[in-house]
Amino acid sequence: MDGGSSGGGITRRQLLRMIGMTAGSAVMYQAMTSLGLAAESGYSGPPKVGKAPPGASVLILGAGIAGMVAAMELRDAGYKVQILEFNDRPGGRNWSIRGGDRYTELGGETQVCEFDEGHYINPGPWRLPYHHHGILHYCKRLGVTLENFVQVNYNAYLHGQNAFDGKPQRHRPIQADYHGHVAELLAKAAQGGGLDQLVSEQDKQILLASLQWWGALDQDYRYTGNHGSSDRRGFNKDPGGGLGAAPEISQPMKLDDLLRSGLWSNLPIGALYDMQTTLMQPVGGMGRIGEAFGRELGSLIRYQCKVTRIEQNDAGVTAHFSDLANGGAEHSASADWCVCTIPLSILGQIPMNVGAPMQAAIRALPYASSVKLGLQFKRRFWEEDDHIYGGITFTDLPITTIGYPSHGYHSEKGVLLGGYLWGTEAMRFTSMTPAQRIQEGLKQGAKIHPQYLDEFENGVAMAWHRSPFTLGCFGQWTDALREEHYDNLCAFDGRIVLAGEHASYIPAWQEGAVTSAMNAIERLHQRATAQGGAA
Amino acid sequence: MDGGSSGGGITRRQLLRMIGMTAGSAVMYQAMTSLGLAAESGYSGPPKVGKAPPGASVLILGAGIAGMVAAMELRDAGYKVQILEFNDRPGGRNWSIRGGDRYTELGGETQVCEFDEGHYINPGPWRLPYHHHGILHYCKRLGVTLENFVQVNYNAYLHGQNAFDGKPQRHRPIQADYHGHVAELLAKAAQGGGLDQLVSEQDKQILLASLQWWGALDQDYRYTGNHGSSDRRGFNKDPGGGLGAAPEISQPMKLDDLLRSGLWSNLPIGALYDMQTTLMQPVGGMGRIGEAFGRELGSLIRYQCKVTRIEQNDAGVTAHFSDLANGGAEHSASADWCVCTIPLSILGQIPMNVGAPMQAAIRALPYASSVKLGLQFKRRFWEEDDHIYGGITFTDLPITTIGYPSHGYHSEKGVLLGGYLWGTEAMRFTSMTPAQRIQEGLKQGAKIHPQYLDEFENGVAMAWHRSPFTLGCFGQWTDALREEHYDNLCAFDGRIVLAGEHASYIPAWQEGAVTSAMNAIERLHQRATAQGGAA
Repeated sequence: MDGGSSGGGITRRQLLRMIGMTAGSAVMYQAMTSLGLAAESGYSGPPKVGKAPPGASVLILGAGIAGMVAAMELRDAGYKVQILEFNDRPGGRNWSIRGGDRYTELGGETQVCEFDEGHYINPGPWRLPYHHHGILHYCKRLGVTLENFVQVNYNAYLHGQNAFDGKPQRHRPIQADYHGHVAELLAKAAQGGGLDQLVSEQDKQILLASLQWWGALDQDYRYTGNHGSSDRRGFNKDPGGGLGAAPEISQPMKLDDLLRSGLWSNLPIGALYDMQTTLMQPVGGMGRIGEAFGRELGSLIRYQCKVTRIEQNDAGVTAHFSDLANGGAEHSASADWCVCTIPLSILGQIPMNVGAPMQAAIRALPYASSVKLGLQFKRRFWEEDDHIYGGITFTDLPITTIGYPSHGYHSEKGVLLGGYLWGTEAMRFTSMTPAQRIQEGLKQGAKIHPQYLDEFENGVAMAWHRSPFTLGCFGQWTDALREEHYDNLCAFDGRIVLAGEHASYIPAWQEGAVTSAMNAIERLHQRATAQGGAA
Repeated sequence: MDGGSSGGGITRRQLLRMIGMTAGSAVMYQAMTSLGLAAESGYSGPPKVGKAPPGASVLILGAGIAGMVAAMELRDAGYKVQILEFNDRPGGRNWSIRGGDRYTELGGETQVCEFDEGHYINPGPWRLPYHHHGILHYCKRLGVTLENFVQVNYNAYLHGQNAFDGKPQRHRPIQADYHGHVAELLAKAAQGGGLDQLVSEQDKQILLASLQWWGALDQDYRYTGNHGSSDRRGFNKDPGGGLGAAPEISQPMKLDDLLRSGLWSNLPIGALYDMQTTLMQPVGGMGRIGEAFGRELGSLIRYQCKVTRIEQNDAGVTAHFSDLANGGAEHSASADWCVCTIPLSILGQIPMNVGAPMQAAIRALPYASSVKLGLQFKRRFWEEDDHIYGGITFTDLPITTIGYPSHGYHSEKGVLLGGYLWGTEAMRFTSMTPAQRIQEGLKQGAKIHPQYLDEFENGVAMAWHRSPFTLGCFGQWTDALREEHYDNLCAFDGRIVLAGEHASYIPAWQEGAVTSAMNAIERLHQRATAQGGAA
């Protein structure tokens, strides 16, 4: 979205400034896209790992999704497998915080979640796109029950502080009127002969017919207030039953009001590959996946092990670690091979004898900052008062996002994703105490839902840059960084291979972790088979 | 969509013929819209019925949604209430057919459903729009648990027999390329000065920026194959993890191929007010609503009563009925007032002493024909092979629709909505035996899912014109019919008032039944209070 004149007297950058911060979330998504975040799966079936060489062993560092996929597949192939995990739970960033859970961030602030039974917030990933075949495969294999996740909700709000006097608009009329005005303008251009060099007469006639239906234009190809347009944007009075129940049509907003609001910038989000329907979530929280892996792997995972040094030689790999459950006692674990899934933000601080290319790659990748707020309310006012069932409200306030639960409709209480912050605003929130983050999130959210202040009960605030096990949210690749470092990061260095979302073209998504683990262990198996496994 | 020249040398009708039958489902939806089907709720809170006059009684005919709403609210207000119902179950068209259920249609064909435990088909309504506040209110009140219903699935198919050699296309590239080409054409028109009379220079610049983001145009406002467009339409090779995992971009289809396919006609369906997210369904089938009402009302409902005559006088209303459970023994039931929810297709055959205006209205309304097929398959090949989780495939084959279950993802078996037929094709299917309907549905569906033939297990076929309790699917209003008859249909005639989807501006939808019942009983209460209740 940066740079370049757009042909008129005004640069794209000025334009974006003109339309204000309202484009915030869309620009964020577009930025994510350029960074390769809004991405997809190269999964093509379970990993092709044959039978392990006799006695071959693999040490896996990290019991997140990547480490546990690697462990399960290698175990099944006959490898002797052990995982060392820093946390006292499996999953890593695959995680749901529920009532009673305790979390201490760097700096020492401890939060104890007070959510009622059955409620949760996913501080990490919260969506499963239909094309993330790898993670969906493991959900199926592990019996993790899935339900639908609502991304686009036509009745959720689009909010800009300078748009429509700061009054939140429903997604519905913004989309209907954008489509309608675009269709009318293009129909006029076509009828005026402006497209004659571009489309044949026959195609023009089909185009006009398509625009009329797609944009809800009237018989003269105008976008006006009538039953057809109201049936997209909503009625002034909805139809009902019995006497006096005829609907009253609504009038579209003016094109210039719509354009200058900038709220159109939110419309394409649900059409991005990763945000398209069908999206899913595990019943009970995203953490159900990590928990299921953890149960499956059982004692193969050793928890509360803080890796302090990783050494390899021709014979194998040894990881030294502190046993945090036992006063930090020093231990070590060895194997023929090592799949290391420790986030690079942490791994860069751990001595490891790998070559310069991998070392440079580890140190090069910055980690994105992100903050998520989970807010429990006494009643589901968004359903009762606003008729919003699931989906997302987008705002240009720093909180960017209000996510409504896609489940438990009509139940008594509810937990909202009260904010999903990125970049500098995330860093600003990170510098606050958890209580301050929640207060600030409530203050901002109340501009959209005034019910916030009366109905709030309790909350948790996850600032990923203060996370002791990741020091950030995910690896923030750029094209230049990828060009220079990506293959060096992923290539085997001796007996060590890295895996995780950071070692994929699908950063930030669990599918990146799955596919990178699969790719890593396929290469590991090739090497082990070629070289013989046991040291 | 009928009539009128579109400005070129070709009529709209010719155009539609040219693009073939591919527009079938969209045209159907548009026709539904013109008929007032794609409609909405005038609900504004529970009905305003105060305390009943002492001893006042109401006889309700029909235990569908309208009748049961009326009964519950009138009971709560203190009226003495009795419902006579033809079927041996509550709900009427609110109905889920499950394994073991038996259904005999007119003509004598009996189907016994062989679905496995946990599977169902909704032969009647299957979706609950977020703005149908009335029916949602009763779901909440009755504890009917809701889950999301997927309408638009970007990975489901759009299929035209003459489009792309009959090869089904995913929704994803059709939408992305339609948006992209529309955006590019409009950007070119804007840059060529073609919109200068329509938008200001400043608005034009914002419009261009919006089109670029909305349509995934490149920096020169062209819709080309690049990461941005692939991130809407899909990649040739999805990105993955580890080495060799970079994505491969895809190339958009040509504008004329897209236009002539007619598949664009399906794009607006999910933007219609009734099809917009969030859509919901009761867990376990739509019939859970009727069942919950039935439990709530208990012995107030007398089942298997076939009403044969309805008489009113100054003192009250009497319905004569055959007790089908006891050899058709003749009985009667009387009350001060009557709320009659019997479908007009049936009611027109029952003697009832109401005035000419209501009689004419009852006889005037035709009933739409519709056929729904429920097909159980051994495995969920649409998920396993096609990666389709919920949502709808649209085709111009007579079946029009393949609906995938929005629940039970990854479970072993599944039931598809294998066809949802309308109009003449529905009548053609109605004339077949149930077994023939299913065979024909399989034959057609196999053109989209070849797995049909190997995986099919059993099915049920509901032809609404052979339904003994409705003789059709729903009341098919036109503007002219409404003008002449609607108010006469809804107005009280003496002590009788009609209610049901046919007495609403939301025909075919449960919300029409709810709002019409509410409106009817509010008027009944006014009359009862004014006149005194007991006869």
